[in-house]
Amino acid sequence: MPRMNSTKDRLIDDAERLIQRRGFSATSVNDVLAVTGVTKGALYHHFPGKDDLELAVLKRAGEAFLRWLDDVLLGPSPRESLRHFFTCALEHHQREQFVGGCLFGNTALEMSDVSRRHTDYVDGVFREWSNRLETVICAGQRGGQIREDFPAQDLALMVVATIEGGIMLSRLCKNERPLRSCLDSLVAFLWTKETS
Amino acid sequence: MPRMNSTKDRLIDDAERLIQRRGFSATSVNDVLAVTGVTKGALYHHFPGKDDLELAVLKRAGEAFLRWLDDVLLGPSPRESLRHFFTCALEHHQREQFVGGCLFGNTALEMSDVSRRHTDYVDGVFREWSNRLETVICAGQRGGQIREDFPAQDLALMVVATIEGGIMLSRLCKNERPLRSCLDSLVAFLWTKETS
Repeated sequence: MPRMNSTKDRLIDDAERLIQRRGFSATSVNDVLAVTGVTKGALYHHFPGKDDLELAVLKRAGEAFLRWLDDVLLGPSPRESLRHFFTCALEHHQREQFVGGCLFGNTALEMSDVSRRHTDYVDGVFREWSNRLETVICAGQRGGQIREDFPAQDLALMVVATIEGGIMLSRLCKNERPLRSCLDSLVAFLWTKETS
Repeated sequence: MPRMNSTKDRLIDDAERLIQRRGFSATSVNDVLAVTGVTKGALYHHFPGKDDLELAVLKRAGEAFLRWLDDVLLGPSPRESLRHFFTCALEHHQREQFVGGCLFGNTALEMSDVSRRHTDYVDGVFREWSNRLETVICAGQRGGQIREDFPAQDLALMVVATIEGGIMLSRLCKNERPLRSCLDSLVAFLWTKETS
């Protein structure tokens, strides 16, 4: 893979940091230029419009998130894979001190009624996330580790929704309790009783 | 209670509609003035700053939401109360065609790292919501209808987080499936097996 242009990279880095904390509409092109220290011409050379820079931020973050997910959704059993993912997700947000939250959740809430381009991309990230969970949950159901009275697809959706809501509540009070409690509840919900 | 000033009321109405769809930072004072058709002087007569108008929007919406919650969290049993609330929540978002989502969730994600004033108010709304659920869940636990292996407080938190995540996913794809599926999963999670 060719090495990315470093100005382009820095623009995406800085835009991502601003967008993650403030959102898209509160992050202007001038804000990004001020942080990155490049000219408007240099920015427009790489990104024809603000939307293109924003989509580049989402695309890079989405790819990184799905790679991370593949790394952490691994364990000696489907249950341990899920548990490892839950632990790593909590640790990530603890490290961030519950600032910034989930870029994809933030984008969903800010852009759902505003921009199909942003929304479609983020919808795709959530689907990929959900599909990966579904695969692990299916394997857990086949092995009798995960409850079978719900389709794996619905259980995966529940995991995504609860984690997103838990991140939001923890971000609001800057405390891990809501997210940690939600993850514990998910374990109780997913694990079959007889083998827990 | 004295009748509210109608200009003030209209300003809050219009600001709420804009904020619910676009967020706080993308809604300018001029946007609100353009929709309401009043002068800047009239707006600043009622609200010293943009923040004060935004807080008035949150406060009115928060009070209305908690009154609505008291109305819908009612049934012949704790389970039926919860089920009625779930049904009414889904119907509300169906009527809105999954546009706008939850103002408090939107505020949490947009303002958590930006404004303590907005965040503290919304945190209070989520706590009140959670407390009301906890009361019903406690009653259900005492009657053997709701699982007792988790404190009612944690179960209430799980309900709030999952609904917020479900609303976000349904808003993203403009389809009721995610929210409906999350509510079904919550029922399976909360209800005790032996009596379901």
